[in-house]
Amino acid sequence: MNDFTFSMPTEVHFGKDKEKLTGKLIEYDKVLYVYGSGSIKKTGIYGRIENSLKENGIDFKELGGVQSNPRLSLVNKGIEICRKENIKFILAVGGGSVIDTAKAISIGVPYKGDVWDFYSGKAIIESSLPVGAVLTVPATASETNGYSVLTNEDGMYKRGLKNDCMKPVFAILNPEFACYLPKYYMAASVVDIFAHVWERYFTKIEHSDLLDRMCEGVFKTLISKGPDAVFERDYDSVSEIMWASSIAHNDTLGAVGDFGSHRTGHEISAEYDLSHGGSLGITMCAWAKYVYKEDINRFCRFAVHVWDVEYDFENPEETALEGIRRMERFILDLGIPTTFKGANLPTDCFEKMAERAVDNDLGYVGGGFKKLFKEDIINIYKLGE
Amino acid sequence: MNDFTFSMPTEVHFGKDKEKLTGKLIEYDKVLYVYGSGSIKKTGIYGRIENSLKENGIDFKELGGVQSNPRLSLVNKGIEICRKENIKFILAVGGGSVIDTAKAISIGVPYKGDVWDFYSGKAIIESSLPVGAVLTVPATASETNGYSVLTNEDGMYKRGLKNDCMKPVFAILNPEFACYLPKYYMAASVVDIFAHVWERYFTKIEHSDLLDRMCEGVFKTLISKGPDAVFERDYDSVSEIMWASSIAHNDTLGAVGDFGSHRTGHEISAEYDLSHGGSLGITMCAWAKYVYKEDINRFCRFAVHVWDVEYDFENPEETALEGIRRMERFILDLGIPTTFKGANLPTDCFEKMAERAVDNDLGYVGGGFKKLFKEDIINIYKLGE
Repeated sequence: MNDFTFSMPTEVHFGKDKEKLTGKLIEYDKVLYVYGSGSIKKTGIYGRIENSLKENGIDFKELGGVQSNPRLSLVNKGIEICRKENIKFILAVGGGSVIDTAKAISIGVPYKGDVWDFYSGKAIIESSLPVGAVLTVPATASETNGYSVLTNEDGMYKRGLKNDCMKPVFAILNPEFACYLPKYYMAASVVDIFAHVWERYFTKIEHSDLLDRMCEGVFKTLISKGPDAVFERDYDSVSEIMWASSIAHNDTLGAVGDFGSHRTGHEISAEYDLSHGGSLGITMCAWAKYVYKEDINRFCRFAVHVWDVEYDFENPEETALEGIRRMERFILDLGIPTTFKGANLPTDCFEKMAERAVDNDLGYVGGGFKKLFKEDIINIYKLGE
Repeated sequence: MNDFTFSMPTEVHFGKDKEKLTGKLIEYDKVLYVYGSGSIKKTGIYGRIENSLKENGIDFKELGGVQSNPRLSLVNKGIEICRKENIKFILAVGGGSVIDTAKAISIGVPYKGDVWDFYSGKAIIESSLPVGAVLTVPATASETNGYSVLTNEDGMYKRGLKNDCMKPVFAILNPEFACYLPKYYMAASVVDIFAHVWERYFTKIEHSDLLDRMCEGVFKTLISKGPDAVFERDYDSVSEIMWASSIAHNDTLGAVGDFGSHRTGHEISAEYDLSHGGSLGITMCAWAKYVYKEDINRFCRFAVHVWDVEYDFENPEETALEGIRRMERFILDLGIPTTFKGANLPTDCFEKMAERAVDNDLGYVGGGFKKLFKEDIINIYKLGE
């Protein structure tokens, strides 16, 4: 097993009505209440949190309007409010974008420079405000991890940041809130969660049997409960998906991964404003078809342990491919396209997207399983055409 | 999925040489250094920790001699040293007994009354000192959980306590340290870890597919890597067992369980000074044979998912029993007896032990799967005769 460092300090409160704890968990008399498009007002979640704050004598200022691929400008607005109002606690009520925005504000308030410095690698975080999260969209695990992804509109750069100090102090997971998610978004979430496990599963790390088997358990849960969560949206299935979403990307299943599917997917999202899960539907399948020969045994294990494919002793490659085919069928059955054409996207920007993907210090993405240079990425996009 | 609360704030440092971090992780200039029988002096672990403390200018007082089923008297001695020396940090270097002792000291120092008050339910913990752990015996998960088990020599009462404030601030897991474990103790550890997963797996909680599948992943790792860890003691296999030990009992796999096998096993340990894992070898098999009819489907799942038993559609009960038989064979193959006779223990104290087991406010033990009253426990002991 590889060396690692791990902690999960966020106090998770999982279950019905747990949002009632929100105010009790906050030891400040004023907070910044960050949320998204306003759907939480329609569903009543906004009011339930508002009540909990009021009952505990907590005043708040609002910052609504967080969108997918959250923007630096809104973060700066939040930082300004906190400074002006002397706010020392950020409460995020929403999905990953809302929580990522709250985290960015939390590190920006005590910092004298531009908060983007942290995301662009120009500065190291020295202090931060505490963040609490009430989750409505199970997908990114931002509620229990130290990641934040932000987009700088000046150039549309999307950058991720990881730091333990950004792990929320508490996370409230009431599966009822996730039951409000429209069908497509629940499906995209299931694909995103699958992808977080996938990135950790397909590496070349040896002797990681425990983490591999735990990953396989999460895959199987997504396969058995994902369709119910999408099409029935019943509390029990959504519960499984909601906790799986946290487990999948808070390093319980290991911190090291490939992330080639994510990085090639990010560019599709950026170019066409496609949901994160939507882009992963395309790139996971195409990536698998492009890289499986790097380690056929690994893809056979995926096929046999995760998809119950019978191992073909005379043709292991066929076993590997059958696993990929079953995954593709699973994603399609959730209603998520696995090709550019299926998603009604043009196929004429592969070169441009590939170029942007490798526009980093390394000149490639991925690497845990296979390094992807520009030509590799174009080939992957072509396989997903 | 049932409602739950979860956090794992302990900062885990896993890998070779990680003990070198010990001193750096402690922000106090004086600590109490708690350890066991002195085997860490023979293996050199004691000195490696001592060096790390000295390099970081940390003074220490020693408390050696912690034994299995750790005793209240030694805890009181530790409390006295801390008060006299104005020590504010407890460093545990050892297995579960050593860490449990350190935890008891950490809550005893700031408390004016008798520390046993916490274990007997007479007082609630209000404050505690921080504890750091360097693990040498992978088994109890005390290094990342909030449990402490203590024995009061005055009546030989053994009582457990759980509180988040007892979760260590850091845990150092260097698998090389666990490679020093004698064969029998490594085997007993594997059985103990298996039992921690087992207690969570056999409950009547519905809709816990995610946790069930993660449990199955850990079981399979123990089955595939346990024998190598015991008989080869190679770094890679021991690594898997070491991290599995933490995962198995720090509520990553769920906080709720039955614990009938544990509670009936405790009495065997207490009566005959048998190792904890040794007693579980007897009680898990006997418990399974006694209770499987309560939920044959559950035991069939265990047989099929964990032991790869082919499901017998004409006789599911036979499937369930085959799973239990394979588990018994696995434990025996590790060198751990699964009967009183096999362990060279007398069989004339069943009534006395059963009586002690149910000497609590409820009048029974277990309950997550089946409540065990005195007669049930005697029957279980008889099945393990």
